Amino acid sequence: MKPLFLGFGNAAKIILEELEDLISDFYYYDEKKITNGSGTMLEEFYIPDDSDMVIECASVGAVRKYYREILSSNKDFYILSTGAFADEDFRRDFNNILEKSQSNVFLPSGAIGGVDVIYAIKKYIDKVFLRTYKPPISFGRNDKEKTLIFSGNAIEAIKRFPRNTNVSVTLSFAVGSFEKVFVEIYSDPNVKRNIHKIEINSSVGNYIFSFDNIQSPNPRTSMLAPLSLASLIRKRFEKVKIGG
Amino acid sequence: MKPLFLGFGNAAKIILEELEDLISDFYYYDEKKITNGSGTMLEEFYIPDDSDMVIECASVGAVRKYYREILSSNKDFYILSTGAFADEDFRRDFNNILEKSQSNVFLPSGAIGGVDVIYAIKKYIDKVFLRTYKPPISFGRNDKEKTLIFSGNAIEAIKRFPRNTNVSVTLSFAVGSFEKVFVEIYSDPNVKRNIHKIEINSSVGNYIFSFDNIQSPNPRTSMLAPLSLASLIRKRFEKVKIGG
Repeated sequence: MKPLFLGFGNAAKIILEELEDLISDFYYYDEKKITNGSGTMLEEFYIPDDSDMVIECASVGAVRKYYREILSSNKDFYILSTGAFADEDFRRDFNNILEKSQSNVFLPSGAIGGVDVIYAIKKYIDKVFLRTYKPPISFGRNDKEKTLIFSGNAIEAIKRFPRNTNVSVTLSFAVGSFEKVFVEIYSDPNVKRNIHKIEINSSVGNYIFSFDNIQSPNPRTSMLAPLSLASLIRKRFEKVKIGG
Repeated sequence: MKPLFLGFGNAAKIILEELEDLISDFYYYDEKKITNGSGTMLEEFYIPDDSDMVIECASVGAVRKYYREILSSNKDFYILSTGAFADEDFRRDFNNILEKSQSNVFLPSGAIGGVDVIYAIKKYIDKVFLRTYKPPISFGRNDKEKTLIFSGNAIEAIKRFPRNTNVSVTLSFAVGSFEKVFVEIYSDPNVKRNIHKIEINSSVGNYIFSFDNIQSPNPRTSMLAPLSLASLIRKRFEKVKIGG
Protein backbone atom coordinates (compact mmCIF):
# COMPACT_ATOMS: atom_id res chain seq x y z
CA MET A 1 0.00 0.00 0.00
CA LYS A 2 1.27 3.45 -0.95
CA PRO A 3 -0.80 6.24 0.62
CA LEU A 4 -0.46 9.98 0.30
CA PHE A 5 -0.43 11.81 3.64
CA LEU A 6 -1.90 15.29 3.56
CA GLY A 7 -0.26 16.78 6.66
CA PHE A 8 2.82 15.17 8.12
CA GLY A 9 2.84 16.08 11.80
CA ASN A 10 2.32 14.00 14.86
CA ALA A 11 -0.90 12.25 13.77
CA ALA A 12 0.58 11.13 10.43
CA LYS A 13 3.58 9.65 12.20
CA ILE A 14 1.37 7.68 14.60
CA ILE A 15 -0.62 6.29 11.66
CA LEU A 16 2.54 5.44 9.74
CA GLU A 17 3.95 3.55 12.70
CA GLU A 18 0.66 1.72 13.34
CA LEU A 19 0.48 0.54 9.73
CA GLU A 20 4.17 -0.09 9.06
CA ASP A 21 3.47 -3.71 8.11
CA LEU A 22 1.01 -2.55 5.43
CA ILE A 23 2.68 0.58 4.07
CA SER A 24 5.45 -0.30 1.63
CA ASP A 25 6.08 3.28 0.57
CA PHE A 26 4.31 6.64 0.84
CA TYR A 27 4.05 10.22 -0.32
CA TYR A 28 3.51 13.19 1.96
CA TYR A 29 2.72 16.84 1.64
CA ASP A 30 2.91 19.32 4.50
CA GLU A 31 2.57 23.08 4.16
CA LYS A 32 5.18 23.53 6.86
CA LYS A 33 7.57 21.33 4.84
CA ILE A 34 8.04 18.92 7.73
CA THR A 35 10.37 16.22 6.41
CA ASN A 36 11.09 12.64 7.31
CA GLY A 37 13.81 10.07 6.69
CA SER A 38 11.59 7.91 4.48
CA GLY A 39 8.83 8.42 1.94
CA THR A 40 8.64 10.96 -0.88
CA MET A 41 7.92 14.59 -0.01
CA LEU A 42 5.81 16.55 -2.48
CA GLU A 43 6.86 20.17 -2.93
CA GLU A 44 3.42 21.11 -4.24
CA PHE A 45 0.19 19.29 -3.46
CA TYR A 46 -0.91 16.87 -6.15
CA ILE A 47 -2.11 13.27 -6.15
CA PRO A 48 0.41 10.86 -7.64
CA ASP A 49 -1.20 8.31 -9.97
CA ASP A 50 0.32 5.38 -8.13
CA SER A 51 -0.86 6.42 -4.65
CA ASP A 52 -3.62 4.19 -3.25
CA MET A 53 -5.49 6.63 -1.02
CA VAL A 54 -5.27 10.05 0.60
CA ILE A 55 -4.97 10.24 4.38
CA GLU A 56 -5.72 13.72 5.72
CA CYS A 57 -4.23 14.53 9.09
CA ALA A 58 -3.50 18.22 8.59
CA SER A 59 -6.34 20.60 9.42
CA VAL A 60 -9.86 21.67 8.56
CA GLY A 61 -8.26 24.24 6.26
CA ALA A 62 -6.36 21.58 4.30
CA VAL A 63 -9.54 19.51 3.77
CA ARG A 64 -11.31 22.60 2.44
CA LYS A 65 -8.40 23.56 0.20
CA TYR A 66 -7.80 20.18 -1.48
CA TYR A 67 -11.05 18.18 -1.41
CA ARG A 68 -11.99 18.93 -5.02
CA GLU A 69 -8.68 17.63 -6.30
CA ILE A 70 -8.80 14.56 -4.04
CA LEU A 71 -12.36 13.55 -4.98
CA SER A 72 -11.62 14.14 -8.66
CA SER A 73 -8.72 11.68 -8.42
CA ASN A 74 -11.24 8.94 -7.47
CA LYS A 75 -8.91 7.78 -4.69
CA ASP A 76 -10.34 6.84 -1.30
CA PHE A 77 -10.17 9.69 1.16
CA TYR A 78 -9.62 9.26 4.94
CA ILE A 79 -10.37 12.42 6.92
CA LEU A 80 -9.22 13.14 10.47
CA SER A 81 -10.28 16.81 10.49
CA THR A 82 -13.98 16.04 10.23
CA GLY A 83 -14.64 19.55 11.53
CA ALA A 84 -14.41 20.67 7.89
CA PHE A 85 -18.00 19.48 7.51
CA ALA A 86 -19.30 21.95 10.10
CA ASP A 87 -19.82 24.39 7.23
CA GLU A 88 -23.06 23.83 5.32
CA ASP A 89 -21.83 25.27 2.02
CA PHE A 90 -18.80 23.00 2.19
CA ARG A 91 -20.99 19.94 2.84
CA ARG A 92 -23.16 20.74 -0.16
CA ASP A 93 -20.25 21.23 -2.54
CA PHE A 94 -18.42 18.17 -1.19
CA ASN A 95 -21.47 15.97 -1.76
CA ASN A 96 -22.02 17.34 -5.26
CA ILE A 97 -18.48 16.48 -6.29
CA LEU A 98 -18.56 13.14 -4.48
CA GLU A 99 -21.62 12.11 -6.49
CA LYS A 100 -19.56 12.16 -9.67
CA SER A 101 -16.52 10.54 -8.03
CA GLN A 102 -15.50 6.93 -7.50
CA SER A 103 -13.94 7.83 -4.12
CA ASN A 104 -15.14 6.41 -0.83
CA VAL A 105 -14.83 8.82 2.07
CA PHE A 106 -14.01 7.52 5.54
CA LEU A 107 -14.68 9.51 8.71
CA PRO A 108 -13.18 7.60 11.65
CA SER A 109 -14.72 7.69 15.14
CA GLY A 110 -11.75 9.87 16.09
CA ALA A 111 -11.38 11.07 19.66
CA ILE A 112 -14.62 9.36 20.68
CA GLY A 113 -16.14 5.93 20.18
CA GLY A 114 -19.47 4.21 20.38
CA VAL A 115 -20.09 5.64 16.92
CA ASP A 116 -20.90 2.04 15.97
CA VAL A 117 -23.98 2.09 18.25
CA ILE A 118 -25.02 5.63 17.36
CA TYR A 119 -24.90 5.02 13.61
CA ALA A 120 -26.74 1.69 14.00
CA ILE A 121 -29.68 3.21 15.89
CA LYS A 122 -29.77 6.70 14.40
CA LYS A 123 -33.42 6.34 13.32
CA TYR A 124 -34.41 5.67 16.93
CA ILE A 125 -32.53 8.56 18.54
CA ASP A 126 -34.21 11.79 19.60
CA LYS A 127 -31.24 13.44 21.25
CA VAL A 128 -27.59 12.82 21.97
CA PHE A 129 -25.83 14.71 24.74
CA LEU A 130 -22.13 15.43 24.47
CA ARG A 131 -20.73 16.69 27.77
CA THR A 132 -17.13 17.86 27.79
CA TYR A 133 -15.23 18.49 31.04
CA LYS A 134 -11.95 20.42 30.94
CA PRO A 135 -9.68 21.90 33.61
CA PRO A 136 -10.55 25.60 34.27
CA ILE A 137 -7.14 26.65 32.95
CA SER A 138 -8.13 25.45 29.45
CA PHE A 139 -10.66 28.28 29.44
CA GLY A 140 -8.43 30.81 31.24
CA ARG A 141 -10.75 30.47 34.24
CA ASN A 142 -10.28 29.86 37.91
CA ASP A 143 -13.41 27.93 38.96
CA LYS A 144 -13.32 26.19 42.32
CA GLU A 145 -16.19 23.89 41.43
CA LYS A 146 -17.65 22.34 38.30
CA THR A 147 -19.25 25.13 36.26
CA LEU A 148 -21.40 24.81 33.14
CA ILE A 149 -20.01 27.36 30.73
CA PHE A 150 -21.86 26.44 27.55
CA SER A 151 -25.04 24.66 26.59
CA GLY A 152 -26.47 24.51 23.07
CA ASN A 153 -26.74 22.38 19.97
CA ALA A 154 -23.78 21.22 17.87
CA ILE A 155 -24.03 24.14 15.45
CA GLU A 156 -23.80 26.69 18.25
CA ALA A 157 -21.06 24.70 20.01
CA ILE A 158 -18.93 24.66 16.87
CA LYS A 159 -19.15 28.45 16.57
CA ARG A 160 -18.25 29.09 20.20
CA PHE A 161 -15.72 26.28 20.83
CA PRO A 162 -13.98 25.47 17.56
CA ARG A 163 -11.50 23.12 19.26
CA ASN A 164 -14.28 20.64 19.92
CA THR A 165 -15.51 20.73 16.35
CA ASN A 166 -14.23 17.36 15.12
CA VAL A 167 -16.09 15.50 17.87
CA SER A 168 -19.32 17.50 17.41
CA VAL A 169 -19.32 16.91 13.65
CA THR A 170 -18.56 13.19 13.87
CA LEU A 171 -21.39 12.71 16.38
CA SER A 172 -23.78 14.80 14.26
CA PHE A 173 -22.95 12.76 11.15
CA ALA A 174 -23.49 9.49 13.06
CA VAL A 175 -26.92 10.64 14.29
CA GLY A 176 -27.64 12.21 10.90
CA SER A 177 -28.45 15.67 12.31
CA PHE A 178 -26.66 18.62 13.86
CA GLU A 179 -29.85 19.63 15.68
CA LYS A 180 -30.10 16.34 17.59
CA VAL A 181 -26.68 16.77 19.23
CA PHE A 182 -26.76 18.84 22.44
CA VAL A 183 -23.45 20.00 23.79
CA GLU A 184 -22.60 21.00 27.35
CA ILE A 185 -19.13 22.25 28.24
CA TYR A 186 -17.96 22.33 31.83
CA SER A 187 -14.99 24.02 33.46
CA ASP A 188 -14.14 21.41 36.09
CA PRO A 189 -11.32 21.67 38.66
CA ASN A 190 -11.74 17.94 39.39
CA VAL A 191 -10.42 16.80 36.00
CA LYS A 192 -6.82 16.84 34.86
CA ARG A 193 -7.52 15.93 31.26
CA ASN A 194 -10.36 16.55 28.82
CA ILE A 195 -13.22 14.13 29.47
CA HIS A 196 -16.01 13.53 26.95
CA LYS A 197 -19.27 11.88 27.98
CA ILE A 198 -21.92 10.87 25.50
CA GLU A 199 -25.43 10.02 26.59
CA ILE A 200 -27.96 8.52 24.20
CA ASN A 201 -31.61 7.96 24.97
CA SER A 202 -33.49 6.03 22.34
CA SER A 203 -36.42 3.70 21.87
CA VAL A 204 -34.04 0.72 21.52
CA GLY A 205 -31.91 1.44 24.60
CA ASN A 206 -30.05 3.95 26.72
CA TYR A 207 -26.29 4.30 26.47
CA ILE A 208 -23.59 6.24 28.29
CA PHE A 209 -20.00 6.43 27.01
CA SER A 210 -17.18 8.10 28.88
CA PHE A 211 -13.80 8.95 27.26
CA ASP A 212 -10.73 9.97 29.16
CA ASN A 213 -8.13 10.27 26.41
CA ILE A 214 -4.42 10.57 27.02
CA GLN A 215 -2.94 13.22 24.78
CA SER A 216 -0.48 12.44 22.03
CA PRO A 217 2.89 14.24 21.88
CA ASN A 218 0.88 17.11 20.35
CA PRO A 219 -1.31 18.11 23.31
CA ARG A 220 -4.15 19.24 21.04
CA THR A 221 -4.62 15.73 19.67
CA SER A 222 -5.53 12.56 21.54
CA MET A 223 -3.73 9.31 20.67
CA LEU A 224 -7.14 7.76 20.02
CA ALA A 225 -7.95 9.89 16.96
CA PRO A 226 -5.05 8.78 14.72
CA LEU A 227 -5.30 5.19 16.05
CA SER A 228 -8.95 5.20 15.07
CA LEU A 229 -8.09 6.25 11.50
CA ALA A 230 -5.31 3.65 11.30
CA SER A 231 -7.67 0.88 12.45
CA LEU A 232 -10.13 1.73 9.66
CA ILE A 233 -7.38 1.21 7.10
CA ARG A 234 -6.19 -2.00 8.77
CA LYS A 235 -9.72 -3.40 8.67
CA ARG A 236 -9.69 -3.22 4.86
CA PHE A 237 -6.95 -5.84 4.86
CA GLU A 238 -8.53 -8.19 7.41
CA LYS A 239 -10.76 -10.97 6.14
CA VAL A 240 -12.64 -11.08 9.44
CA LYS A 241 -13.91 -7.55 10.10
CA ILE A 242 -14.73 -6.88 13.74
CA GLY A 243 -17.36 -4.40 14.90
CA GLY A 244 -19.20 -1.53 13.27
CA MET B 1 -29.17 -6.59 -3.39
CA LYS B 2 -30.35 -10.17 -2.94
CA PRO B 3 -29.14 -11.68 0.35
CA LEU B 4 -29.67 -15.16 1.74
CA PHE B 5 -30.91 -15.19 5.33
CA LEU B 6 -29.78 -18.16 7.38
CA GLY B 7 -32.44 -18.14 10.11
CA PHE B 8 -35.68 -16.29 9.57
CA GLY B 9 -36.95 -15.35 13.02
CA ASN B 10 -37.27 -12.03 14.71
CA ALA B 11 -33.72 -10.75 14.02
CA ALA B 12 -33.96 -11.46 10.27
CA LYS B 13 -37.24 -9.58 10.08
CA ILE B 14 -35.76 -6.53 11.82
CA ILE B 15 -32.82 -6.55 9.37
CA LEU B 16 -35.14 -6.97 6.39
CA GLU B 17 -37.26 -4.02 7.49
CA GLU B 18 -34.20 -1.84 8.18
CA LEU B 19 -32.78 -2.50 4.71
CA GLU B 20 -36.00 -2.57 2.69
CA ASP B 21 -34.74 0.22 0.43
CA LEU B 22 -31.64 -1.86 -0.45
CA ILE B 23 -33.05 -5.40 -0.62
CA SER B 24 -34.80 -6.00 -3.92
CA ASP B 25 -35.38 -9.70 -3.30
CA PHE B 26 -34.06 -12.36 -0.91
CA TYR B 27 -33.74 -16.04 -0.10
CA TYR B 28 -34.21 -17.51 3.34
CA TYR B 29 -33.66 -20.81 5.07
CA ASP B 30 -34.96 -21.64 8.53
CA GLU B 31 -34.81 -25.06 10.14
CA LYS B 32 -38.20 -24.40 11.75
CA LYS B 33 -39.62 -23.63 8.29
CA ILE B 34 -40.80 -20.19 9.36
CA THR B 35 -42.35 -18.65 6.25
CA ASN B 36 -43.03 -15.15 5.07
CA GLY B 37 -45.20 -13.39 2.47
CA SER B 38 -42.21 -12.37 0.36
CA GLY B 39 -38.81 -13.80 -0.62
CA THR B 40 -37.96 -17.35 -1.66
CA MET B 41 -37.86 -20.06 1.00
CA LEU B 42 -35.23 -22.77 0.58
CA GLU B 43 -36.39 -26.25 1.60
CA GLU B 44 -32.79 -27.40 2.06
CA PHE B 45 -29.84 -25.17 2.86
CA TYR B 46 -27.75 -24.22 -0.14
CA ILE B 47 -26.32 -20.96 -1.47
CA PRO B 48 -28.02 -19.77 -4.65
CA ASP B 49 -25.55 -18.50 -7.26
CA ASP B 50 -27.33 -15.18 -7.62
CA SER B 51 -27.41 -14.35 -3.89
CA ASP B 52 -25.07 -11.51 -2.92
CA MET B 53 -24.22 -12.43 0.66
CA VAL B 54 -25.22 -14.69 3.53
CA ILE B 55 -26.73 -13.09 6.65
CA GLU B 56 -26.73 -15.45 9.62
CA CYS B 57 -29.28 -14.68 12.31
CA ALA B 58 -30.11 -18.22 13.40
CA SER B 59 -27.88 -19.67 16.12
CA VAL B 60 -24.38 -20.73 17.04
CA GLY B 61 -25.39 -24.20 15.84
CA ALA B 62 -26.32 -22.94 12.38
CA VAL B 63 -22.98 -21.13 11.98
CA ARG B 64 -21.14 -24.32 12.91
CA LYS B 65 -23.25 -26.46 10.60
CA TYR B 66 -23.01 -24.35 7.44
CA TYR B 67 -19.79 -22.29 7.58
CA ARG B 68 -17.84 -24.58 5.27
CA GLU B 69 -20.44 -24.32 2.56
CA ILE B 70 -20.78 -20.54 3.00
CA LEU B 71 -17.05 -19.81 2.88
CA SER B 72 -16.62 -22.15 -0.11
CA SER B 73 -19.23 -20.11 -2.00
CA ASN B 74 -16.92 -17.05 -1.71
CA LYS B 75 -19.91 -14.90 -0.73
CA ASP B 76 -19.56 -12.36 2.07
CA PHE B 77 -20.77 -13.71 5.39
CA TYR B 78 -22.43 -11.59 8.11
CA ILE B 79 -22.60 -13.36 11.48
CA LEU B 80 -24.89 -12.40 14.37
CA SER B 81 -24.20 -15.53 16.46
CA THR B 82 -20.56 -14.66 17.06
CA GLY B 83 -20.63 -17.08 20.00
CA ALA B 84 -19.80 -19.79 17.46
CA PHE B 85 -16.18 -18.63 17.72
CA ALA B 86 -15.98 -19.47 21.44
CA ASP B 87 -14.78 -22.92 20.40
CA GLU B 88 -11.08 -23.08 19.60
CA ASP B 89 -11.30 -26.00 17.17
CA PHE B 90 -14.01 -24.18 15.29
CA ARG B 91 -11.91 -21.01 15.07
CA ARG B 92 -8.96 -22.95 13.68
CA ASP B 93 -11.00 -24.74 11.03
CA PHE B 94 -12.90 -21.58 10.10
CA ASN B 95 -9.67 -19.66 9.56
CA ASN B 96 -8.15 -22.47 7.51
CA ILE B 97 -11.09 -22.50 5.14
CA LEU B 98 -11.31 -18.71 5.07
CA GLU B 99 -7.70 -18.50 3.89
CA LYS B 100 -8.65 -20.25 0.65
CA SER B 101 -11.89 -18.31 0.26
CA GLN B 102 -12.73 -14.93 -1.34
CA SER B 103 -15.33 -14.28 1.37
CA ASN B 104 -15.14 -11.38 3.77
CA VAL B 105 -16.56 -12.14 7.21
CA PHE B 106 -18.34 -9.41 9.19
CA LEU B 107 -18.87 -9.61 12.94
CA PRO B 108 -21.07 -6.67 13.98
CA SER B 109 -20.73 -4.97 17.36
CA GLY B 110 -24.01 -6.67 18.24
CA ALA B 111 -25.60 -6.06 21.64
CA ILE B 112 -22.72 -3.82 22.70
CA GLY B 113 -20.85 -0.91 21.13
CA GLY B 114 -17.63 0.95 21.55
CA VAL B 115 -16.05 -1.88 19.57
CA ASP B 116 -14.68 0.90 17.35
CA VAL B 117 -12.50 2.18 20.22
CA ILE B 118 -11.53 -1.25 21.49
CA TYR B 119 -10.41 -2.52 18.08
CA ALA B 120 -8.52 0.76 17.42
CA ILE B 121 -6.48 0.56 20.63
CA LYS B 122 -6.18 -3.21 21.07
CA LYS B 123 -2.37 -3.09 21.18
CA TYR B 124 -2.53 -0.72 24.15
CA ILE B 125 -5.05 -2.65 26.24
CA ASP B 126 -4.06 -4.83 29.17
CA LYS B 127 -7.52 -5.75 30.37
CA VAL B 128 -11.15 -5.19 29.52
CA PHE B 129 -13.86 -5.66 32.13
CA LEU B 130 -17.32 -6.74 31.08
CA ARG B 131 -19.81 -6.40 33.93
CA THR B 132 -23.30 -7.71 33.38
CA TYR B 133 -26.18 -6.88 35.74
CA LYS B 134 -29.40 -8.87 35.54
CA PRO B 135 -32.53 -9.11 37.71
CA PRO B 136 -32.21 -11.97 40.26
CA ILE B 137 -35.12 -13.81 38.60
CA SER B 138 -32.97 -14.32 35.47
CA PHE B 139 -30.80 -16.61 37.58
CA GLY B 140 -33.68 -18.17 39.56
CA ARG B 141 -32.43 -16.27 42.60
CA ASN B 142 -33.98 -14.03 45.19
CA ASP B 143 -31.19 -11.59 46.14
CA LYS B 144 -32.21 -8.47 48.05
CA GLU B 145 -29.03 -6.64 47.14
CA LYS B 146 -26.52 -6.63 44.29
CA THR B 147 -24.59 -9.91 44.44
CA LEU B 148 -21.54 -10.93 42.40
CA ILE B 149 -22.31 -14.44 41.20
CA PHE B 150 -19.47 -14.97 38.73
CA SER B 151 -16.02 -13.59 38.11
CA GLY B 152 -13.53 -15.01 35.61
CA ASN B 153 -12.11 -14.58 32.13
CA ALA B 154 -14.15 -14.79 28.93
CA ILE B 155 -13.37 -18.48 28.40
CA GLU B 156 -14.69 -19.42 31.82
CA ALA B 157 -17.69 -17.07 31.47
CA ILE B 158 -18.69 -18.68 28.18
CA LYS B 159 -18.70 -22.13 29.80
CA ARG B 160 -20.75 -21.05 32.81
CA PHE B 161 -23.12 -18.50 31.19
CA PRO B 162 -23.65 -19.48 27.57
CA ARG B 163 -26.35 -16.82 27.08
CA ASN B 164 -23.73 -14.09 27.30
CA THR B 165 -21.45 -15.77 24.79
CA ASN B 166 -21.98 -13.49 21.78
CA VAL B 167 -20.94 -10.41 23.75
CA SER B 168 -17.91 -12.12 25.34
CA VAL B 169 -16.67 -13.38 21.98
CA THR B 170 -17.15 -10.06 20.16
CA LEU B 171 -15.23 -8.24 22.90
CA SER B 172 -12.48 -10.86 22.90
CA PHE B 173 -12.11 -10.60 19.12
CA ALA B 174 -11.93 -6.80 19.31
CA VAL B 175 -9.19 -6.96 21.96
CA GLY B 176 -7.55 -9.87 20.16
CA SER B 177 -7.51 -12.18 23.19
CA PHE B 178 -9.95 -14.18 25.31
CA GLU B 179 -7.57 -13.93 28.27
CA LYS B 180 -7.69 -10.13 28.38
CA VAL B 181 -11.47 -10.01 28.87
CA PHE B 182 -12.58 -10.30 32.49
CA VAL B 183 -16.24 -10.96 33.11
CA GLU B 184 -18.25 -10.23 36.23
CA ILE B 185 -21.91 -11.19 36.46
CA TYR B 186 -24.19 -9.65 39.07
CA SER B 187 -27.63 -10.62 40.27
CA ASP B 188 -29.06 -7.15 40.93
CA PRO B 189 -32.57 -6.40 42.27
CA ASN B 190 -32.11 -2.74 41.24
CA VAL B 191 -32.17 -3.44 37.49
CA LYS B 192 -35.22 -4.31 35.43
CA ARG B 193 -33.32 -5.17 32.26
CA ASN B 194 -29.92 -6.62 31.45
CA ILE B 195 -27.22 -3.95 31.75
CA HIS B 196 -23.75 -4.40 30.27
CA LYS B 197 -20.86 -2.19 31.37
CA ILE B 198 -17.47 -2.26 29.68
CA GLU B 199 -14.43 -0.71 31.29
CA ILE B 200 -11.15 -0.31 29.42
CA ASN B 201 -7.91 0.85 30.96
CA SER B 202 -5.13 1.44 28.47
CA SER B 203 -2.03 3.50 27.92
CA VAL B 204 -3.93 5.76 25.47
CA GLY B 205 -6.96 6.40 27.66
CA ASN B 206 -9.62 5.06 29.99
CA TYR B 207 -13.11 4.32 28.76
CA ILE B 208 -16.40 3.25 30.33
CA PHE B 209 -19.39 2.21 28.23
CA SER B 210 -22.81 1.38 29.65
CA PHE B 211 -25.53 -0.42 27.65
CA ASP B 212 -29.14 -0.66 28.72
CA ASN B 213 -30.74 -2.44 25.77
CA ILE B 214 -34.45 -2.73 25.24
CA GLN B 215 -35.36 -6.23 24.17
CA SER B 216 -36.74 -7.04 20.76
CA PRO B 217 -40.04 -8.97 20.42
CA ASN B 218 -37.91 -12.04 21.15
CA PRO B 219 -36.86 -11.34 24.77
CA ARG B 220 -33.56 -13.19 24.35
CA THR B 221 -32.37 -10.70 21.70
CA SER B 222 -31.84 -6.96 22.02
CA MET B 223 -33.00 -4.69 19.21
CA LEU B 224 -29.44 -3.34 19.02
CA ALA B 225 -27.87 -6.60 17.77
CA PRO B 226 -29.81 -6.90 14.48
CA LEU B 227 -29.70 -3.11 13.95
CA SER B 228 -25.95 -3.29 14.30
CA LEU B 229 -25.71 -5.97 11.61
CA ALA B 230 -28.06 -4.01 9.32
CA SER B 231 -25.97 -0.84 9.71
CA LEU B 232 -22.83 -2.71 8.60
CA ILE B 233 -24.57 -3.69 5.37
CA ARG B 234 -25.96 -0.18 4.84
CA LYS B 235 -22.47 1.28 5.23
CA ARG B 236 -21.31 -0.67 2.17
CA PHE B 237 -23.67 1.39 0.06
CA GLU B 238 -22.80 4.79 1.54
CA LYS B 239 -20.06 6.81 -0.10
CA VAL B 240 -19.33 8.62 3.16
CA LYS B 241 -18.63 5.94 5.77
CA ILE B 242 -19.08 7.15 9.35
CA GLY B 243 -17.18 5.73 12.31
CA GLY B 244 -15.15 2.62 12.91
